[in-house]
Amino acid sequence: MTLPPTVEWQGDAQTGRMVIIEQTLLPDELKLVELTELDPVIDAISRLAVRGAPALGVAGAFGAVIALRSGLGDAGLERLADARPTAVNLRWAVERVKRVAEGDPERALAEAKAIHEDDIRTCRAIGEHGAGLIEDGFGVLTHCNAGALATGGMGTALAPMYVAFEQGRKFRVFADETRPLLQGARLTSFELAENGIDVTVIADSMSAVVMREGKVNLVITGADRVAANGDAANKIGTYGVALHAKTHGLPFYIAAPKSTFDASLADGGGIPIEERKPEELRMLKGSRTAPDSAKVYNPAFDVTPAGLIAGYITEDGILKASELADWLK
Amino acid sequence: MTLPPTVEWQGDAQTGRMVIIEQTLLPDELKLVELTELDPVIDAISRLAVRGAPALGVAGAFGAVIALRSGLGDAGLERLADARPTAVNLRWAVERVKRVAEGDPERALAEAKAIHEDDIRTCRAIGEHGAGLIEDGFGVLTHCNAGALATGGMGTALAPMYVAFEQGRKFRVFADETRPLLQGARLTSFELAENGIDVTVIADSMSAVVMREGKVNLVITGADRVAANGDAANKIGTYGVALHAKTHGLPFYIAAPKSTFDASLADGGGIPIEERKPEELRMLKGSRTAPDSAKVYNPAFDVTPAGLIAGYITEDGILKASELADWLK
Repeated sequence: MTLPPTVEWQGDAQTGRMVIIEQTLLPDELKLVELTELDPVIDAISRLAVRGAPALGVAGAFGAVIALRSGLGDAGLERLADARPTAVNLRWAVERVKRVAEGDPERALAEAKAIHEDDIRTCRAIGEHGAGLIEDGFGVLTHCNAGALATGGMGTALAPMYVAFEQGRKFRVFADETRPLLQGARLTSFELAENGIDVTVIADSMSAVVMREGKVNLVITGADRVAANGDAANKIGTYGVALHAKTHGLPFYIAAPKSTFDASLADGGGIPIEERKPEELRMLKGSRTAPDSAKVYNPAFDVTPAGLIAGYITEDGILKASELADWLK
Repeated sequence: MTLPPTVEWQGDAQTGRMVIIEQTLLPDELKLVELTELDPVIDAISRLAVRGAPALGVAGAFGAVIALRSGLGDAGLERLADARPTAVNLRWAVERVKRVAEGDPERALAEAKAIHEDDIRTCRAIGEHGAGLIEDGFGVLTHCNAGALATGGMGTALAPMYVAFEQGRKFRVFADETRPLLQGARLTSFELAENGIDVTVIADSMSAVVMREGKVNLVITGADRVAANGDAANKIGTYGVALHAKTHGLPFYIAAPKSTFDASLADGGGIPIEERKPEELRMLKGSRTAPDSAKVYNPAFDVTPAGLIAGYITEDGILKASELADWLK
């Protein structure tokens, strides 16, 4: 991996700093930002300079170190945990560091580093288990960004690609651009290309065609939440890609850590689908893409039924939907 | 139809003018441009101020009137016919006007108006035949723009919607935004909303979800070229939408005039697919959407096999694929 870490800690607990890739500038500019005070950390999280559930957990953990050493106490930690209200990993990490540290920045840093190392290990395990799916000469299609830029490690959906690349396999990746926020075009293609992997950006509407043309052998995406039966919520468009994979006889895999699986949900019907603001489809970086006179429907996620999913690439191996219940016990 | 015509002639042959909607400004601004000289006509065609195969035919016909009355002769007509080299309708219309007019601007205008009226009639006939497919309460999905803004009349794929609306039916339309050039978001949603039809823009990746949610009952798109067996080339993404329609048990129709059918092509394998420049996926209105370090694949069209198409809405009625060969004789 030639790209710097998405988030890391440099130095000791009292004088050190959290360093993040400023993702709002990608792919135009690769800029690292040093964070030493709580407000800039909260700001970076709020404006998506760092994003992706696992990466937010790590950023929250290091942010808690900064809050504690600055003497901002529980109020500071609470503000940090609230920086993105729907990010479960963020609150989880802040609360874990708070509980273990008992106010001590040194113990906080040790715990935050443990969270980060856990994430690195989990990503690599997913990569090791999934890499065998990628054969020489394969085309692999992915949707959205479940890569190094979304985690503290080498990603989830992209981890098998990084490990297969380390192992010397030759393959190419198709990255759906992933409207409306273009995480595939802006982030996935950027991090894969920076790390030397052959990647081609396509519009979301092209996935069926590249499959029919025989350019794709395998689909791997991440997931935001997986129900006990294997139904998987992920970025809008994933369901359509999974249908196209089935039509063309291609295996569709979800790569996700155990923490993404929700044993309390029997199936995908229980997963709430956030609808995001219409401006995401009406404007792009200040340019109008659709008129105000038209309505907009903008669901952020969709649910891919377990029946379309060949397997779940996890830190414990590749599981079938029928094996999830036992694994989650 | 409350929107002004996409292209029309005002006044007589010697002092009159071609008036077009300046489509490069849509959906931000509805501006009409008056053209009285040949160079501005060629410029408007080149920079897509007027676009869509049938609309280019009409614009070429009126442009020929301007070329002839300006004494620019065959050289002028040739430059006009070449303004967009791949636009078959443009050259066809310029040559038809040239042949009939024999240098006389009055006869040229009469022929150009006949071409325009033919297009208006053909569009309306497609609309009348297709309107019956749209029932009260229906959701209709379309891809790209095959509407009034692409023709001299009320469009092809959108014509059944305009006629059903005139007939008082209540329905809603879902417009795929249609990356990379966003003709669905910028043009289809604009013209439907301006004309009072309930239209909702979705990202291309959302079509499978709105179908699964039961919001769509019917899909109608246009076509760029249809082979004798019914295989249809249309804007990239159409094939994926047709597959999603089949999965969800929804009928998928192509609306196109007889002039779009190519009896000389046995099937869609013979339709050449233009690959457009990567910048369309790398940049949008001056903002970067994907890095130069990633490759881009950008086919402009795809071919939907006849087996996925419920019928062809033409000026002569709704035909099945098995009926095309006789009709094209």
